[in-house]
Amino acid sequence: MASPLIHPDRLFPADPAVRAVARRLYEQVADLPIVSPHGHTDPRWYAENKNFPDPARLFVVPDHYIFRMLYSQGIPLEQLGVPRRDGGETEQDGRKIWRLFASHYHLFRGTPTRSWLDHAFATLFDIEERLNAENADRLYDRIAERLETDACKPRALFQRFNIEAIATTESPLDELKWHQMIRDSGWNGRVVTAYRPDPVVDPDFEGFRDNLTRFGELTGEDTFSWTGYLEAHRKRRAFFKSYGATSTDHGHPSARTADLSLGEAEALFERVAGGQEVSAQDAELFRAQMLTEMARMSVDDGLVMQIHPGSVRNHNGGILARHGRDMGADIPSRTDYVHALKPLLDRFGNEKNLTIILFTLDETSYSRELAPLAGHYPVLRLGPAWWFFDAPEGMKRFRELTTETAGFYNTVGFNDDTRAFPSIPARHDVARRVDCAYLAELVTTHRLEEDEAHEVAHDLAYRLAKKAYRL
Amino acid sequence: MASPLIHPDRLFPADPAVRAVARRLYEQVADLPIVSPHGHTDPRWYAENKNFPDPARLFVVPDHYIFRMLYSQGIPLEQLGVPRRDGGETEQDGRKIWRLFASHYHLFRGTPTRSWLDHAFATLFDIEERLNAENADRLYDRIAERLETDACKPRALFQRFNIEAIATTESPLDELKWHQMIRDSGWNGRVVTAYRPDPVVDPDFEGFRDNLTRFGELTGEDTFSWTGYLEAHRKRRAFFKSYGATSTDHGHPSARTADLSLGEAEALFERVAGGQEVSAQDAELFRAQMLTEMARMSVDDGLVMQIHPGSVRNHNGGILARHGRDMGADIPSRTDYVHALKPLLDRFGNEKNLTIILFTLDETSYSRELAPLAGHYPVLRLGPAWWFFDAPEGMKRFRELTTETAGFYNTVGFNDDTRAFPSIPARHDVARRVDCAYLAELVTTHRLEEDEAHEVAHDLAYRLAKKAYRL
Amino acid sequence: MASPLIHPDRLFPADPAVRAVARRLYEQVADLPIVSPHGHTDPRWYAENKNFPDPARLFVVPDHYIFRMLYSQGIPLEQLGVPRRDGGETEQDGRKIWRLFASHYHLFRGTPTRSWLDHAFATLFDIEERLNAENADRLYDRIAERLETDACKPRALFQRFNIEAIATTESPLDELKWHQMIRDSGWNGRVVTAYRPDPVVDPDFEGFRDNLTRFGELTGEDTFSWTGYLEAHRKRRAFFKSYGATSTDHGHPSARTADLSLGEAEALFERVAGGQEVSAQDAELFRAQMLTEMARMSVDDGLVMQIHPGSVRNHNGGILARHGRDMGADIPSRTDYVHALKPLLDRFGNEKNLTIILFTLDETSYSRELAPLAGHYPVLRLGPAWWFFDAPEGMKRFRELTTETAGFYNTVGFNDDTRAFPSIPARHDVARRVDCAYLAELVTTHRLEEDEAHEVAHDLAYRLAKKAYRL
Repeated sequence: MASPLIHPDRLFPADPAVRAVARRLYEQVADLPIVSPHGHTDPRWYAENKNFPDPARLFVVPDHYIFRMLYSQGIPLEQLGVPRRDGGETEQDGRKIWRLFASHYHLFRGTPTRSWLDHAFATLFDIEERLNAENADRLYDRIAERLETDACKPRALFQRFNIEAIATTESPLDELKWHQMIRDSGWNGRVVTAYRPDPVVDPDFEGFRDNLTRFGELTGEDTFSWTGYLEAHRKRRAFFKSYGATSTDHGHPSARTADLSLGEAEALFERVAGGQEVSAQDAELFRAQMLTEMARMSVDDGLVMQIHPGSVRNHNGGILARHGRDMGADIPSRTDYVHALKPLLDRFGNEKNLTIILFTLDETSYSRELAPLAGHYPVLRLGPAWWFFDAPEGMKRFRELTTETAGFYNTVGFNDDTRAFPSIPARHDVARRVDCAYLAELVTTHRLEEDEAHEVAHDLAYRLAKKAYRL
Repeated sequence: MASPLIHPDRLFPADPAVRAVARRLYEQVADLPIVSPHGHTDPRWYAENKNFPDPARLFVVPDHYIFRMLYSQGIPLEQLGVPRRDGGETEQDGRKIWRLFASHYHLFRGTPTRSWLDHAFATLFDIEERLNAENADRLYDRIAERLETDACKPRALFQRFNIEAIATTESPLDELKWHQMIRDSGWNGRVVTAYRPDPVVDPDFEGFRDNLTRFGELTGEDTFSWTGYLEAHRKRRAFFKSYGATSTDHGHPSARTADLSLGEAEALFERVAGGQEVSAQDAELFRAQMLTEMARMSVDDGLVMQIHPGSVRNHNGGILARHGRDMGADIPSRTDYVHALKPLLDRFGNEKNLTIILFTLDETSYSRELAPLAGHYPVLRLGPAWWFFDAPEGMKRFRELTTETAGFYNTVGFNDDTRAFPSIPARHDVARRVDCAYLAELVTTHRLEEDEAHEVAHDLAYRLAKKAYRL
Repeated sequence: MASPLIHPDRLFPADPAVRAVARRLYEQVADLPIVSPHGHTDPRWYAENKNFPDPARLFVVPDHYIFRMLYSQGIPLEQLGVPRRDGGETEQDGRKIWRLFASHYHLFRGTPTRSWLDHAFATLFDIEERLNAENADRLYDRIAERLETDACKPRALFQRFNIEAIATTESPLDELKWHQMIRDSGWNGRVVTAYRPDPVVDPDFEGFRDNLTRFGELTGEDTFSWTGYLEAHRKRRAFFKSYGATSTDHGHPSARTADLSLGEAEALFERVAGGQEVSAQDAELFRAQMLTEMARMSVDDGLVMQIHPGSVRNHNGGILARHGRDMGADIPSRTDYVHALKPLLDRFGNEKNLTIILFTLDETSYSRELAPLAGHYPVLRLGPAWWFFDAPEGMKRFRELTTETAGFYNTVGFNDDTRAFPSIPARHDVARRVDCAYLAELVTTHRLEEDEAHEVAHDLAYRLAKKAYRL
């Protein structure tokens, strides 16, 4: 643990008095179990418990944080082993990919990617040197060797990471067979699913009508009628609950909601599910209406709603054509919440048994919209700094911009939201450190007393996530 | 004053060198008189000079900062004694309300509400313990006892708070009888009114047409003709001036202004004041035109204009129906100034005898629009961090985002903008501390010399408000 | 250099540990040559190498940063010697202008203007006192005397400032005669031009059709046909390249781009270049299309594109009528990049031989749009904090809001973007100090190691600008 890659005081304020408080706060929360209520790890890992492949295929090839930065500096994705849609040639030699990555490691200076990687290198592989072109091969060998051991199998890492519970994210069309396999295995790691209905809720989703067909097959409902379609959701939600799901997740382009009459909703559904091309207006309105329908179901079944709006997906047309979705080309855009959420909130904003967690990629909404909304509506909570903002400065801004209006108790602790399994402890550690630094600042400027800060630190690191997500 | 609730160094930067400068700056301004040029205290208090009721009715029931936070965590407003429109039952026992509040005091950690309360508890009631469920009754008794004394009557507090002048805010339909009563009493406290014409300027205001009728009765003008309507404003403005008013205040949904021809304005007024339903476009255009009309009158009578745009009022439909307006459900939204103000500025932007003070609930406008505008137009000044941003981090952002473009001298010192009388000294104290902290940062990073910082601190705490508001 | 006006530790964080790192970093970059790849100094200065006129005409009369602030506080531009369009009387006595300026020097407290002035006063004129009403005459005399010496001639200052290369900005209609004269003189200072085609690209530009005519005369092309018009650009770009140009610059109201078919583009050009009034839509669409055309030419000729969008020019109608353009009344407005740039990026976003540098006056786009875009697209780079944000807090926000997503290597170092020659060293010095302060913060919070920080400091101060601008 004494690797120079991870200084024990990292992310604590430089001022000695503030740092001393931050240290004391952090000490009490550093080793708390990890609650990871929202993320994208693959349940197959926990089900099969096979060793991860080589270092490049663990760290570089699947991580769009990494290859987007390399791509931005002119390195073709093919050279990084990222598959092409047309099956065209891409680099297959993990060592070559790793060398290319290592020789550009300086690009990550000042980014969270760098700190997550260094944390994993240091804690999992006892690496003490900064990665570079010269030591690339040596570190590759070290990591490759360790990855073959039992200690680096998914379940062993899960235990080592001290994960109390982790949520994966699945489509309603997923049969949850890996979750079933985990259950059958008798392993005691808590891996739950979450209901992400975008493929059957977003008319712009690839294969939307085919998805509806499959949705009907899975549920035995007529998913081309409004009633049957809603009933199919109810059934799949119940099915997901039986695999531990406590939440749903909604990744819409905007936060728009609607509250149509039954007749309007039926007519809209007919236009959307029918054979014709769906207009952009109808697609947006349907997604909007479905957020309200999902809220209605949540009032009944208690699943916590998460709304993740504001990403313009697949912005780079060339990359989409060549490599497909999720290639680091999703770009945030301006997002309104105040007007967008009103229809849903007018209907369900004052419910007792409903929790809606709001995320944003538009930081201007923190202080102007999200904190004022969450500081009033009983159903609303603020999700943590998300995606591009899941980094020290981004997290700090989140606290500075929301706390004075919404306090700490309308927030929900940390989400790692990651596909990158080895980064999970690093990400939670960063969140704990940044929150302790923020609290230490409040303590030393006499806005909060230290005994209170200890309680808040514990809440932010552990209790709020469990409570908000009903885990 | 040595109550542990209010540390003498609170809000000063932790770094010893910076803190030392901040202390020196603050010492010179800590005891300056309070100039409160914009606020919502009730003139009746000063007129009647009666004791305030029990602690809950002083601190909790009327303060939407407090009950919105409690409501956001699921506490029904009825349990907090907030009246219902239908006269339905609400908690009447102040002690029970207080206990509920006290047992949720942790929700306010990190919020300005917490610091204002602690400041009042410590300075007015010599309380030394943090409020909690256990000491709730004891503190209730202590406060209740003190509230009955002469020292806690409004005028005594006014004196004790060292208020040099305070402005209240009244509708043109207000007869200013409490202001008359203050005047008749011979008391020497300076309480002035401010002209807030929204009820007769905003066609969406409840009872707008009835308000016009009453406006006519009060002024003897035909307020259903454009000429008579404008003349009525002139008369009421003069009447308000005779009660010390030096400013007007405008709380529109947007900052939009217009500069219509006489014919267009008359036709618009006819549509707006006539019996038919007013379209949203006409309502917005009328408010826009009226800002320009008010500016024209200000050029003549010297009243300083304040524009407070950008709040979506009464966002929560359920709460509006059940409890009415001003229930903590006003939510900011995006606000444009650059295009919105152009018509007014094209007409009056270069006037000698006009001051327009701009406020915002959209912090993105500080550096992008407001500071560049105020750093150029002679009629414009920037109001202080407002409402949700009237807190240490919000105030700090205000300075960081405006000073480099607009300097200090296009700002107007501090407004408390409050209904919560006991919070006034706390709020001004926070502003003084935060400004001194900001200045200390400039001094220690050698961007300003300390002698200059002393002068600026004094300006920000006292002189700029007097000058800008002509008090 | 020991003038009290410029403290050796200015802009370094107050904390002793952080300051020590900042000092060490700064020491290594303080004396690096200045690369100024974007600016508006007058090539005539270097060509003629005449002495600058009196202090007021050097510092006050031509600098809209200065006179906008004075104007915002009620000082008429006429009293500051700013010429009137109608030839009306303005102050001609430099000393009187200087006195007026000096007696309002306090207005600049906390602004970058103040620090640039103090830096120039101290380093060029050995001034040790803060300017004020009392010492105004004395300092005027000192500066005036020095301005007459050879040491204060443009080329001598150029050498003294240690400028390795500087770019000016010219219209395609400029014959570059001053650049020719510099070349003919045999002087070895590197002064290059940059291609700023707004006068022949923006249909709203004053005299647009006359400019097209002149454009045709200069190139021998039929600039009223789409083909001839584009060819004229190609020729002028080549001509500018022969005078050292490595970049183009585009100051559009928005960042909108378009990618029309040839037929659509031709038809649009016909509407725009024909005799009739151009609609706002067509003007915007034409500018949009021309950004894409410019990108296409850049792919061929290697000129780096700079896009400077988002300024509402000449906001103050009265000032425009009286004094003309560039009078400190340009105001930023909200700027979208994500949707606006998509057409251009869909066409050229993945090119090898193209660099597009994006600037903004809307800071909300840093973290939401610009850093995510530049952190993905190989053609994109982020320009430094621009105009109103070219100041310590603005620069700090730029780093805090972009680095975690885009890193350092998708940025391009510093631009001074100035007409104010004596401020150039001060501006670069501020940028170097602020970057070192930011890096020192990363080092002391263990997000970056000091050896890396040294390398980054050097990159930001010198290497990145040379590389991005191909200088």
